[in-house]
Amino acid sequence: MTAHTAIETEAVLLRQDADAVATLTLNRPAARNSLSEALIEALTVELDRLAEDKSIRAVILAANGPVFSAGHDLKEMTAHRADADRGRTYFTDVLGRCSAMMQRIVRLPQPVIGAVEGVATAAGCQLVASCDLAVAGAEARFCTPGVHIGLFCSTPMVALSRNLARKHAMEMLLLGEMVRADDAHRFGLVNRVVAAGEALAEARRMALAIASKSPLTLKTGKRAFYEQLEMGLSRAYDHASQVMVENMLARDAEEGIGAFMEKREPRWQGR
Amino acid sequence: MTAHTAIETEAVLLRQDADAVATLTLNRPAARNSLSEALIEALTVELDRLAEDKSIRAVILAANGPVFSAGHDLKEMTAHRADADRGRTYFTDVLGRCSAMMQRIVRLPQPVIGAVEGVATAAGCQLVASCDLAVAGAEARFCTPGVHIGLFCSTPMVALSRNLARKHAMEMLLLGEMVRADDAHRFGLVNRVVAAGEALAEARRMALAIASKSPLTLKTGKRAFYEQLEMGLSRAYDHASQVMVENMLARDAEEGIGAFMEKREPRWQGR
Amino acid sequence: MTAHTAIETEAVLLRQDADAVATLTLNRPAARNSLSEALIEALTVELDRLAEDKSIRAVILAANGPVFSAGHDLKEMTAHRADADRGRTYFTDVLGRCSAMMQRIVRLPQPVIGAVEGVATAAGCQLVASCDLAVAGAEARFCTPGVHIGLFCSTPMVALSRNLARKHAMEMLLLGEMVRADDAHRFGLVNRVVAAGEALAEARRMALAIASKSPLTLKTGKRAFYEQLEMGLSRAYDHASQVMVENMLARDAEEGIGAFMEKREPRWQGR
Repeated sequence: MTAHTAIETEAVLLRQDADAVATLTLNRPAARNSLSEALIEALTVELDRLAEDKSIRAVILAANGPVFSAGHDLKEMTAHRADADRGRTYFTDVLGRCSAMMQRIVRLPQPVIGAVEGVATAAGCQLVASCDLAVAGAEARFCTPGVHIGLFCSTPMVALSRNLARKHAMEMLLLGEMVRADDAHRFGLVNRVVAAGEALAEARRMALAIASKSPLTLKTGKRAFYEQLEMGLSRAYDHASQVMVENMLARDAEEGIGAFMEKREPRWQGR
Repeated sequence: MTAHTAIETEAVLLRQDADAVATLTLNRPAARNSLSEALIEALTVELDRLAEDKSIRAVILAANGPVFSAGHDLKEMTAHRADADRGRTYFTDVLGRCSAMMQRIVRLPQPVIGAVEGVATAAGCQLVASCDLAVAGAEARFCTPGVHIGLFCSTPMVALSRNLARKHAMEMLLLGEMVRADDAHRFGLVNRVVAAGEALAEARRMALAIASKSPLTLKTGKRAFYEQLEMGLSRAYDHASQVMVENMLARDAEEGIGAFMEKREPRWQGR
Repeated sequence: MTAHTAIETEAVLLRQDADAVATLTLNRPAARNSLSEALIEALTVELDRLAEDKSIRAVILAANGPVFSAGHDLKEMTAHRADADRGRTYFTDVLGRCSAMMQRIVRLPQPVIGAVEGVATAAGCQLVASCDLAVAGAEARFCTPGVHIGLFCSTPMVALSRNLARKHAMEMLLLGEMVRADDAHRFGLVNRVVAAGEALAEARRMALAIASKSPLTLKTGKRAFYEQLEMGLSRAYDHASQVMVENMLARDAEEGIGAFMEKREPRWQGR
């Protein structure tokens, strides 16, 4: 393991790189890691940097403090009710930037793994749903509680309803109740439940396994996964076949298949 | 709890309103609550009334007798084989009206909760799948048995295949076997399994929780949920963001967020 | 039960017909039943024959030897790296033919049941995902290990991601780890897990149950199932209603409903 280098790009978001894995840590524990403008911006900037960073092969999304993330910052939001347009411009802007940030996770070349301890609510739950993979500590909880305050979790539901069966998503959205890690696991919102406090360690194990793969292959495959999901069967096969031909012709597949046949470790190129 | 008022709109369908929750009860127990023309019509009329009824904030769909619903009324159907066109006009009409009724559940502003005891088969199973949420008593059973009589459950499968994983839906449709409440729960067809005879009570608890929320928020969120499901990710986010901005600007979100910050109960407006 | 007749259409694929059920058995055990050009071709030919064979009402896909199928034949693939175009034409062709074969399973009029013992990897796992139903022996394992050799399982993921929740599919694709039968069951990749060595017997029980149904009804229903899945709710209902009207007017529904009402066994016509 290389030496850890902790660079605090913003007070609100920490980034730590080790062994080709970047860990982004939400760092507003006193504010329940709510997604303030500054935190959305920091995540956006860091995701854009990661997209260009060929030294990083997997990303973990974690949080400091007892709450994973409480979603949007209601204080910031309500302050703009005093605007001339009662906040319309501001709300449109901040929700647009938040949605764009969530889609950056989906479009990031590297796989992203959520490591959840504590409560992930509203846009905090959306963050988890937007990750490619997620691990939860046994005490983690998930919730889309917007209905309690008259504000349906409409943007979180875009990610949620693409992870969960319809009635499970609706149960979370209509009742706004806390969902335990076990139920989140049953719903398919998280891949694994580990002992409380172990989510980050387990996410790191998964990230290291992923980081040992060809970054070009991961990038190609992740992008094609989300693209083909939006197509009918026949078009999806045409697209995936094309992607796979290009993948076969890339040096990493030649190296990987060769290494496999020669029973040696492959040496991947960058992407 | 206010006094219950039982109004029998039609002999075949009962409606009981209490505490802003309407309970619709299929009431053809001697005919296994099969969806006769009269019952489809009664459900259609009552759902249209409910859509306009601002005093009702959640709807329960239940049934009298040991069978939840046996689906279409085969006697009525087969009687029309004697028609000049062997029933084509009639079948087209009745299936069209039944499909429209099922979609009224999906499009109803209020959330709909199925409360299932006994057997829900064919279009009866479709009713459950069409609800936003569903609760089953432990002895409830679910089945799409059309294959046994040469009539594939093609319209039920529209609802079923949007609730269940592909192979689970196919298992029900191709084998036509009874599925126990536990398996229906595993498949995601029902949200909760409770002791036999307790489905209605549990549905009522869920309905009361929902009825305490802002009706405008529920209406907005439910509609957006089903709309965005049919969109690609990017368009879904654009749509949901727009919906959420409007929701933020509505009085109920202002009131709800205010009440939350002031730690008091919110007072919702109508929708 | 009629006498079994084992016809080896190709050395690499066996076909055995009994009681209106055809069992296709991958028969390259020494090569881990990898999908060589010859095996893809044999499956294609046999699926086309089955599509026309009105004596067969259900199909089982099984395999000889300890491995269900290891996916594409890497030796064949890599041999074509010596081609003038480094294999582009060959890869395009073989992946196109493999994808077309997988879609033949989906489009086959008869339901197809996978019976899996041992390991099903890459395109072998895709075969299972492409079946309408699947049974696994308790020791069966599933895996999309392409990432280990720099070749993302892009075409397998088309089938996989239409069976599994998003994060489950991503876990298999990004980590390439072996998934046990129990987890495959939880993911919805297989319908049933039985004792090791019993997958074929259980698949046969399911196939015989299906073979007792009207072949026209099964054909109509299976086709409509996959068609309506690619439509929005409203169009899906229009389509399914039309399909059901035609189904009602077909002789088998008349016979089936009549037999049901008269409490006798139905006598189906061919399709």
